[in-house]
Amino acid sequence: MSLRLTILGCHSATPRINAYPTSQYLEINNRHFLIDCGEGTQRQMRKYKVGFSKISHIFISHLHGDHFYGLVGLLSTYGILNREKEIHIFGPKGIEEITRLNLKVSHSHSKFPIVFHELSSKESELIFEDDKVVVHSIPLDHRVYTNGYLFIEKEKLRNLNIEEIRKYPEIEKCDYQNLKLGADYTLQSGAIIPNAALTKDPVKPISYAYCSDTRYLPHLSELLQNVDLLYHESTFLSDKEDLAQKTKHSTAAQAAKLARASNVQQLIIGHYSSRYKDIELFKKEAETTFNNVALAEPGKVFEINNG
Amino acid sequence: MSLRLTILGCHSATPRINAYPTSQYLEINNRHFLIDCGEGTQRQMRKYKVGFSKISHIFISHLHGDHFYGLVGLLSTYGILNREKEIHIFGPKGIEEITRLNLKVSHSHSKFPIVFHELSSKESELIFEDDKVVVHSIPLDHRVYTNGYLFIEKEKLRNLNIEEIRKYPEIEKCDYQNLKLGADYTLQSGAIIPNAALTKDPVKPISYAYCSDTRYLPHLSELLQNVDLLYHESTFLSDKEDLAQKTKHSTAAQAAKLARASNVQQLIIGHYSSRYKDIELFKKEAETTFNNVALAEPGKVFEINNG
Repeated sequence: MSLRLTILGCHSATPRINAYPTSQYLEINNRHFLIDCGEGTQRQMRKYKVGFSKISHIFISHLHGDHFYGLVGLLSTYGILNREKEIHIFGPKGIEEITRLNLKVSHSHSKFPIVFHELSSKESELIFEDDKVVVHSIPLDHRVYTNGYLFIEKEKLRNLNIEEIRKYPEIEKCDYQNLKLGADYTLQSGAIIPNAALTKDPVKPISYAYCSDTRYLPHLSELLQNVDLLYHESTFLSDKEDLAQKTKHSTAAQAAKLARASNVQQLIIGHYSSRYKDIELFKKEAETTFNNVALAEPGKVFEINNG
Repeated sequence: MSLRLTILGCHSATPRINAYPTSQYLEINNRHFLIDCGEGTQRQMRKYKVGFSKISHIFISHLHGDHFYGLVGLLSTYGILNREKEIHIFGPKGIEEITRLNLKVSHSHSKFPIVFHELSSKESELIFEDDKVVVHSIPLDHRVYTNGYLFIEKEKLRNLNIEEIRKYPEIEKCDYQNLKLGADYTLQSGAIIPNAALTKDPVKPISYAYCSDTRYLPHLSELLQNVDLLYHESTFLSDKEDLAQKTKHSTAAQAAKLARASNVQQLIIGHYSSRYKDIELFKKEAETTFNNVALAEPGKVFEINNG
C-alpha cells in the first residue's frame, strides 16, 4: 500500500521557460493516473520518467487551457507509440467532442479505445472503483465547471490475529474470510467471540485529494476530513485576496485554513500566479495557519508508504 | 534589407526532452512571421527571445499535430497578454473551425481579431503582399493537404546613377521615379537614353522557401529557382528511402538534389526522425550532393544581409 505523486507542472496561466502548466502523475496502490494535462505535459512526463503505457486513467479538472491543452498531443503520441490498451478520460461535459474533433482534424489515428466519462454533477460522486482504488469527484467553484478528485485506496480487510485464533481449535481456515470481513465467531457452545478479539485493524487506506482551480470553499473540509495528502491551489497570496475572489481562485492562507479544518497530514500548494517571483512566500503564508506545507515544484515527488 | 530565421523546433512526430516539433520565427524586411507551431512553441519563443507582440502572421503548413498543436495555446496566451492587434493565420481548410472551437471550449477570450486565410489550391498562389514582402504558397505532397511557403522581399526600385544623370541637365527630380521604375528617358532632341545608362540594378531581394512535410518533388526546382535560403524536410536518410516514399517524406539526399537543381545559396534540413541518434549523418548525406548544407537545431539563427 503506497502512494507516489510526481508534480509535472504547477504554474498558472501560460507555459514559460521555467513555468509549466498543471499536471500530476499519481501512483496509488498500483494504479497509475494522470491528473490534468497542460501544454507540454508529455515532455515533462519524459523528463521525470513517467511510463506512458502504465497510465490507464486521465482526470481533467476543467477546460481552461493550462489544464488540458496538452491532452490531444499526448493521445496523438499514444497513437504513434502504437498503444492498444484503452484509456479512460474523466472531465467536464464537452471534453469528448473537442478531443475527438482535434484528433480527427489532425488525422491522428489510434488503435486504442478512448473512453470518456463526462461529469456534470454539482455533488460529489463516486466516479471510479476497482479492487484497488476508489475515486470521488470534488465539485469546486471556479469560473467554469470544475472538479477536483479524491483518490482513496480501497478499504482493506481486517488482519487475522493468528495467535488469538489458535486458542479456538474449532475455527477453521474456511472461516478466515468472514473474520477478515469483520464477522464475530459463534462457538459450538453458543458463545460469541467478538471480531475484535480475533482480528486487528487493517492498515489505514491512503488518500489524496486534488483541488484546482477553485475559490476557497470551507465546506470541503467535510469531504476531505483526514485525507493524508491534500493538493490545493494557491494562485495568490493574501495581499490579492480580492483578486482571488474575483477570479475564483484561492490564497495560500485559504488553502492552509482548509487543510487545518480537514485535519490532513500534509498540504501541497501550487498554481502560483506569475506575478510572484519568490514562491517561498506562499509557503510562509500557509505555514502561519498549518504546520506541514510543501511547495509543488516540477519533478518533486511525494511518497506515503503505509505498511 | 535583411532576413533572420530562428529555428524554434525541428524534430518530427512527438515532443521529447531534447526534441521540439516544428516551428520557425522569420524576420524578413521588417516583417515578423511564425511558421508552423507544434506543441511547446510558445515556450521555445520565450527561450529564444522572440517578441510575441511583433508577430503579425502565422503560416501553418498542414494539420498534423507536430505542426499545429501549439497554436491554440499561443493564441490563448495572446489573450492573457491583452493583445489587441489582429493576427492573420494561413493554413489548410479546416484550421479556422478547429481553432475557434478550441478557443471557445477553453473559454479563451481575446480582444484581438483572428483573421484566417484558408488554403485549398493545388497550385502555387500569391497569398500575401504588402510593401515589404510577398508570400507564395508552395503546394507539397504529404499524406494530408500541405503547403510550404515562399517568402520574398518586395522587388526593389532601380538605384539612380546620379553621376550619369547629371550629364543631362534637362532630367529633373520629378523624372526620378520613372527612372527608378525602369523607364528610358527621351531627350527634347528625341534621342533616347536607355534606363540602364541612368540607373543601377537594385539590391537583389532576399528570399526564403520553407518546405515541410513532403515527398521529394523534383518539379519544385522551377518555383524555388535561385532562392537564397531553402529549408527542406529530411525525415529520413537514404537507407529508409522506401519508408520516405511510403510516408510521403524526403531523405537528406533528396533535399540536397532539390537544392542543387534550384540553385539555392544554402540548404537547411530538419524534421529528423527520432530513429536517428546522430543528426550529423543527415548533413553528411546531403553534402555528397550539395555543398552548403546546415542542420536545423533549436535556437540556431540564419541571417542574410543584402546591403
